Amino acid sequence: MKKQKDSGSGWATDPSTLLRVGDDFVLADVDANASPGFNGGKASGKAELKTAADELSEKQERLFAASKVDATDAVLLVLQAMDTAGKGGIVRHVVGSVDPQGVGLTAFKAPTKAELAHDFLWRIRKAVPDPGMIGVFDRSHYEDVLIARVRGLADDTEIERRYGAILEFEQELVDRGIRIVKVMLHISGDEQKARLAKRLDRPDKHWKFNPGDIDERQHWPAYQEAYQSVFERTSGGAAPWHVVPANKKWYARVAVQRLLLNALTEIDPQWPPADFDVEEQKARLAAT
Amino acid sequence: MKKQKDSGSGWATDPSTLLRVGDDFVLADVDANASPGFNGGKASGKAELKTAADELSEKQERLFAASKVDATDAVLLVLQAMDTAGKGGIVRHVVGSVDPQGVGLTAFKAPTKAELAHDFLWRIRKAVPDPGMIGVFDRSHYEDVLIARVRGLADDTEIERRYGAILEFEQELVDRGIRIVKVMLHISGDEQKARLAKRLDRPDKHWKFNPGDIDERQHWPAYQEAYQSVFERTSGGAAPWHVVPANKKWYARVAVQRLLLNALTEIDPQWPPADFDVEEQKARLAAT
Repeated sequence: MKKQKDSGSGWATDPSTLLRVGDDFVLADVDANASPGFNGGKASGKAELKTAADELSEKQERLFAASKVDATDAVLLVLQAMDTAGKGGIVRHVVGSVDPQGVGLTAFKAPTKAELAHDFLWRIRKAVPDPGMIGVFDRSHYEDVLIARVRGLADDTEIERRYGAILEFEQELVDRGIRIVKVMLHISGDEQKARLAKRLDRPDKHWKFNPGDIDERQHWPAYQEAYQSVFERTSGGAAPWHVVPANKKWYARVAVQRLLLNALTEIDPQWPPADFDVEEQKARLAAT
Repeated sequence: MKKQKDSGSGWATDPSTLLRVGDDFVLADVDANASPGFNGGKASGKAELKTAADELSEKQERLFAASKVDATDAVLLVLQAMDTAGKGGIVRHVVGSVDPQGVGLTAFKAPTKAELAHDFLWRIRKAVPDPGMIGVFDRSHYEDVLIARVRGLADDTEIERRYGAILEFEQELVDRGIRIVKVMLHISGDEQKARLAKRLDRPDKHWKFNPGDIDERQHWPAYQEAYQSVFERTSGGAAPWHVVPANKKWYARVAVQRLLLNALTEIDPQWPPADFDVEEQKARLAAT
């Protein structure tokens, strides 16, 4: 158990270890309603989100700055979830707290005809973060082993091939200095039903609703199985998965925020040294 | 003089009219130190930035939502300035207050070899915001008539051609429903000197300094002339320029925030109506 050093942190246990998918992980055993490792409720969570945002912001700036000289580190946050689980809220409230200049966000929709003509990783590779950046994938290459499996868009042999290709791809990114933070936001079926009902009740939320969401919902058990398989096949490689209970939105946000912070803390980016003679430049400036 | 309707706004006069470049505009007459139209100082400015951020955020979400049905409106914020004038601060503190999912930020650096092989608008066109988005250009096609003119990268005939091409290009965007907000952040030469000196004094700011900044600084009068020419040639078209006094960072931020808000208020985006039968979907959901 790793103690948090940050003053004021509400974490009793580091979610990086607590929420990590290890051997013998069973998705069906995760309580989507829980808030493991965090002291306190919603109010403490909101306070934590605010405090840790400053820390995240400062580390992000260092990461960005370090890349201007020679550091190659970057972070990639991969967000997967069933509909309504709160990916958008993570992007808005966690990612949105850092300088937009240091963030590259890519939302992967159903592949276009052009994208389908290439290997599934083709469009993914184009969105990999440059050094110094925090890349965020709202959905990702995992759709190609999730919806593709559930809806039979690829056969079993192809799904198997993709697991292998994903492991190689992620190893390649990690070798290049990219810390990958893989997150599944986990909600319960009842919670999804309540959230979809809310979207139908509120005219200002209708635009977020799509009748197809209910079709997908009917494949709930198949999706849970597909996720379980993803965890078994792709958590042991270069980048482990984290399953974040997400019925409580505030908890999911502070948890993902802490996972990101931990990735940056591991990188420990430093302000880069000047690659010019400071005194000489001061003299030049003074002469202007 | 247009009165602001927003409760708590510190604006006595709308900066959209006050800072707009009209006929007979003379850049050299603008006081970079001033805070025209705003009641109060730094503390009021910071409070305004926070209050208006919520308004900006709500309108941005409506803009985004409306595009999911059939609206084609978008906003494009063009930021130009001398080094250290605070473009980064605008992106971080103004643009950074809205949902990253609704923002497309492009920083235009010195053109690459591939970009130079095309017309100057080629790389710009690729970054034009999609419907529903707020696009932000950190530097823009105006570099091609600013640094290109000052450094003699293009001859007078080509610069003339570019003014015309820019006017046509911007008209085309406006016709497609894109509101263009063109902003020059205006600092004084002394203020730039002080800001560069600060970057040299602080090791955590060294990465932001480039000896080339001092070379550019030595072309200050030529840049001011090039900007004056840009205003004369490209403010009368589809999208006027705004020159924002920027020696006071807090002022520049609330002013640009208000210009963005005004663009969104003009669009007046509405939550789109459902393109499905709400009751039918409620029944389907209840049955799951």
